[in-house]
Amino acid sequence: MPTILRNVPRVPQDLINAYTPLDSATVYEAAGPAGAMDHTVRPIAWGQRACGNALTVRCHPGDNLMLHAAIAVAQPGDMIVADVGGLQDAGYWGEITTVAALARGVVGLVINGGIRDRAAIVERRFPIWSAGVCMRATVKRTAGDLNVPVVVGGVTVHPGDLVLADDDGVVVVAREKLAEVLDKARAREAKEAAVMQLLEQGQLTLDVLGFRDMLEELGVRL
Amino acid sequence: MPTILRNVPRVPQDLINAYTPLDSATVYEAAGPAGAMDHTVRPIAWGQRACGNALTVRCHPGDNLMLHAAIAVAQPGDMIVADVGGLQDAGYWGEITTVAALARGVVGLVINGGIRDRAAIVERRFPIWSAGVCMRATVKRTAGDLNVPVVVGGVTVHPGDLVLADDDGVVVVAREKLAEVLDKARAREAKEAAVMQLLEQGQLTLDVLGFRDMLEELGVRL
Amino acid sequence: MPTILRNVPRVPQDLINAYTPLDSATVYEAAGPAGAMDHTVRPIAWGQRACGNALTVRCHPGDNLMLHAAIAVAQPGDMIVADVGGLQDAGYWGEITTVAALARGVVGLVINGGIRDRAAIVERRFPIWSAGVCMRATVKRTAGDLNVPVVVGGVTVHPGDLVLADDDGVVVVAREKLAEVLDKARAREAKEAAVMQLLEQGQLTLDVLGFRDMLEELGVRL
Amino acid sequence: MPTILRNVPRVPQDLINAYTPLDSATVYEAAGPAGAMDHTVRPIAWGQRACGNALTVRCHPGDNLMLHAAIAVAQPGDMIVADVGGLQDAGYWGEITTVAALARGVVGLVINGGIRDRAAIVERRFPIWSAGVCMRATVKRTAGDLNVPVVVGGVTVHPGDLVLADDDGVVVVAREKLAEVLDKARAREAKEAAVMQLLEQGQLTLDVLGFRDMLEELGVRL
Amino acid sequence: MPTILRNVPRVPQDLINAYTPLDSATVYEAAGPAGAMDHTVRPIAWGQRACGNALTVRCHPGDNLMLHAAIAVAQPGDMIVADVGGLQDAGYWGEITTVAALARGVVGLVINGGIRDRAAIVERRFPIWSAGVCMRATVKRTAGDLNVPVVVGGVTVHPGDLVLADDDGVVVVAREKLAEVLDKARAREAKEAAVMQLLEQGQLTLDVLGFRDMLEELGVRL
Amino acid sequence: MPTILRNVPRVPQDLINAYTPLDSATVYEAAGPAGAMDHTVRPIAWGQRACGNALTVRCHPGDNLMLHAAIAVAQPGDMIVADVGGLQDAGYWGEITTVAALARGVVGLVINGGIRDRAAIVERRFPIWSAGVCMRATVKRTAGDLNVPVVVGGVTVHPGDLVLADDDGVVVVAREKLAEVLDKARAREAKEAAVMQLLEQGQLTLDVLGFRDMLEELGVRL
Repeated sequence: MPTILRNVPRVPQDLINAYTPLDSATVYEAAGPAGAMDHTVRPIAWGQRACGNALTVRCHPGDNLMLHAAIAVAQPGDMIVADVGGLQDAGYWGEITTVAALARGVVGLVINGGIRDRAAIVERRFPIWSAGVCMRATVKRTAGDLNVPVVVGGVTVHPGDLVLADDDGVVVVAREKLAEVLDKARAREAKEAAVMQLLEQGQLTLDVLGFRDMLEELGVRL
Repeated sequence: MPTILRNVPRVPQDLINAYTPLDSATVYEAAGPAGAMDHTVRPIAWGQRACGNALTVRCHPGDNLMLHAAIAVAQPGDMIVADVGGLQDAGYWGEITTVAALARGVVGLVINGGIRDRAAIVERRFPIWSAGVCMRATVKRTAGDLNVPVVVGGVTVHPGDLVLADDDGVVVVAREKLAEVLDKARAREAKEAAVMQLLEQGQLTLDVLGFRDMLEELGVRL
Repeated sequence: MPTILRNVPRVPQDLINAYTPLDSATVYEAAGPAGAMDHTVRPIAWGQRACGNALTVRCHPGDNLMLHAAIAVAQPGDMIVADVGGLQDAGYWGEITTVAALARGVVGLVINGGIRDRAAIVERRFPIWSAGVCMRATVKRTAGDLNVPVVVGGVTVHPGDLVLADDDGVVVVAREKLAEVLDKARAREAKEAAVMQLLEQGQLTLDVLGFRDMLEELGVRL
Repeated sequence: MPTILRNVPRVPQDLINAYTPLDSATVYEAAGPAGAMDHTVRPIAWGQRACGNALTVRCHPGDNLMLHAAIAVAQPGDMIVADVGGLQDAGYWGEITTVAALARGVVGLVINGGIRDRAAIVERRFPIWSAGVCMRATVKRTAGDLNVPVVVGGVTVHPGDLVLADDDGVVVVAREKLAEVLDKARAREAKEAAVMQLLEQGQLTLDVLGFRDMLEELGVRL
Repeated sequence: MPTILRNVPRVPQDLINAYTPLDSATVYEAAGPAGAMDHTVRPIAWGQRACGNALTVRCHPGDNLMLHAAIAVAQPGDMIVADVGGLQDAGYWGEITTVAALARGVVGLVINGGIRDRAAIVERRFPIWSAGVCMRATVKRTAGDLNVPVVVGGVTVHPGDLVLADDDGVVVVAREKLAEVLDKARAREAKEAAVMQLLEQGQLTLDVLGFRDMLEELGVRL
Repeated sequence: MPTILRNVPRVPQDLINAYTPLDSATVYEAAGPAGAMDHTVRPIAWGQRACGNALTVRCHPGDNLMLHAAIAVAQPGDMIVADVGGLQDAGYWGEITTVAALARGVVGLVINGGIRDRAAIVERRFPIWSAGVCMRATVKRTAGDLNVPVVVGGVTVHPGDLVLADDDGVVVVAREKLAEVLDKARAREAKEAAVMQLLEQGQLTLDVLGFRDMLEELGVRL
């Protein structure tokens, strides 16, 4: 039996706003490091950025029916995270789903299968991280699940988690850690900016970040 | 013994012109769905588009001699479709073949191996869908076939078929179905435009495309 | 025990300058053909170009400590060539190492693992050829080697070799052949320009490059 | 900070015994279908079978220190499930860890990286499902986690889940569903045996399993 | 609309019998060389051998309904060749379909997706060449085609072609060339046996097969 | 111009004999660790073992002519190590080359491409480590090199190096280090046997190998 959860708690919009400008790698480090998807889920265009609430979907391979269902339950600020079993040679999402999703306030898509209508989607500025681009058809015949935990790109995603994605891929932050990770990410960002200033002045990472001792202990004298 | 067919029937230019502005995914759906290559044959640059008559070539892996032969028999409007056995780590095609092909009116290349001189080729605006980019050398020692059926990207391509390619990949339409598929593709395009207007106004794909009943039968009530 | 060589001979800057404008494929052909990495080492952005002296590094998979050590011994004109065991799902290099490397005059990075902070790196115009982009963390715990022979992308790279990279990938030229290969590459470039002029006038590669006889011997009459 | 949980609840031995003779595919179907790892985690020898309690481990790529820690906390009936970040070109586990694990009553290993000493391990009849076989070294330098949720082969595994593996791969059953899934799996097994008897007598799956009507509705009349 | 062809011409049994003892590589060479599938379609056990008439099937990815339909139309001597779109992470075929197929005289399966119940299938001595082994479920919801041309492993297979498979993979011989290819294959086999006798006596392939002159022309003097 | 070196120094037979019974992983560790090929070069059958002198060959992709040349210059105890550019979908080596090689005393083959006639080769007990098995044809048209340094499986192999291979893959030991590595490997083997005795008695690797302190320093108390 399919599990369909519609009104699960969402990430508050102010938290989404706070995370949006951060780099995914910074947030990933602040969270553990934890929550980074692997390289199989990639942006369909360089320079994209998206942050939203995880609306999770599970589809059968080759079947995109539940993505239509997901759009129907989406709320503004949701980012759809879809586990479709890893099939690259299928276009689960296209211009029509993009238009429908944009009209509902969906802010992006993360999917471990292929998408199609890439040119039109990029022109409409809807950001997608996917397993690739392929026009091959999907069908609409099999039920799946909405807002259950899914695994995409080697990461377990729960509904209501925060999803942040940019050129470096996708990071997922557990709902209950959002405030704590945000603080750590901002602190990390500030520290990195200070480090980079020193490096631009010609200092070495060995000295600024303290790796020289570590190397010497390992027998590497520079 | 190599099979060399030179003057096989071509797709009429007016049909090529009619297909050129269509999306590959639309044509693929109108054709069955049928004829879409898999994700292993990808554009070497985003935003490319090409449509032409399939001039098919079969080369031995690591040998590009027959691509030179193909250029010699090419006619304006031809798009070369080459089966080179899937070797990614070889540059079967480069700036020289591009210049020669452009001078003959060749409109693009589809190949299940690598190409090289990417920057120069993109600057000359010659569109290629390939298995990747690699500079490693090919030789010119083994005969192959021209204008015989080949398999590229999981699709059987016959000489004289129509080839259409864009960001979503490559679709092949059988010569004898060109008029019929064109009509269906245009009808599909018109229908999709109407659907998207409704979606932009906030309607759901469930209602506009009739998936709500299907979902309810499958136990998904939204 | 780690091997750390600091002051190995570098490629003279005038040779680097002479190679910089050449295409990687031309240099590869002039060198044998020899020295071209395979398709697994790819540019992180199209249109990049870099040429430098190979500063070689060997890291343990998942550990980027020695990249920091490499920056510390780098001299202007060095290009870091790192063998990290092929792990794609790790970001061995990021904005901080980029800033540090740029401050030392490092001209680029070639690595058989992943990198992160892609957007910031591209904005800073630091060119990288890598196995991909992934934000996952590395550690700094294990010693490796500096300026020993390494294998990256199927090519053996010695410290002090010349590295040239563009859209077509990475080529490595042995230090002791730099003068000879440069001459051959320039001759090749001149010859190719002449060939392309003839092709633009409508001549065939079969005739300009002499493949027609070869084809006839193989039973292909065009 | 590493999370180290030692005395988490285990699957009772009688449940392990009850699951041991079942086929992994049958259990997977009875559980949802749910819990089947993907094809990237494969048996190192055909004919292996193992069933145990999931003792989960997270290692840094290229580092197997925590596998030694896992053996130290293992109890008889445990099956180690290790997330090592997907690195195939490393031998995280070998004859020494096998001998140590066997002495502690560990019943098998599931790992998304490589292993080595395959011949000796198979001879000792210790069953492993891994990403492959490679002798390349790992280090022992980085802490990880014991008995936290991990993702291996696209499945989230919690400590104390049941793991069952055979030629078809690995299935994980959530601890809280063990009794229910066992009943369903046995019922399924009985039903399949009955079906196969009918099929051996020459009946068709279309009739025995009721697919004929389904096909006719879809326009397939046989 | 699905295309269902039931009573297409089969390869005569005496031809199947004649081909059965031949090596796939010998037949492939005798046929062109032509008709060899690529390495993505592999035996599920070493030492298997099968030869039969191609009963072709096209399924939607993740859906095995048409495999049941194929069994229903199968005749003794048929070998099912299924294009399921390349999805590895699905078990399209298992013990139940094996039992049903064996009862109908089906001699084997070639499929570009995964299968499950490997141990039971091998024990029942039903030979399969597949993209791998995975237990993940398929559904039965979408119509496909029976006895239409399909592409599997990079080869176009027509219904009524002969399929021969062993450790080296799968070769397909066009129906209309069966007598001619058989003669050539037998001649080739005889010639190879004679060659091997000379080699066992210590002669070189350079001399027995005449490669010495070829090498000398290429500048290799041995 | 091809480089053909015929009478390069070989590894003395007594050293080959001394290395033959050792495990590849033990030798790899004793050598650095160094010299282990990656997982892309795999045994064609489990249980194989071979040790010999590296006779290196470089072929053009899809061309096996130089393998015939290699057999002609082979001496008893040689193991052929062939770089064929990584093409999996080709059978560079088969029963004929096996018979010829066995007659010359060749002890095995390591190749980064495919082979064919697997069943016959295994029956003749000629051990091969390859990129896979595929029957597709190669040609004999292009010269290559004999006894030059090659890169196979990510390792640089020089003619006259020692090659040792078993289930865990292939390791290469530099000619000049053979005596030293042999001593270390034997010492390592003895030490491992002693360790395993302690482990079989129930001791932990943490204590026997001293990892407990390391873990405690990293914050892992067991």
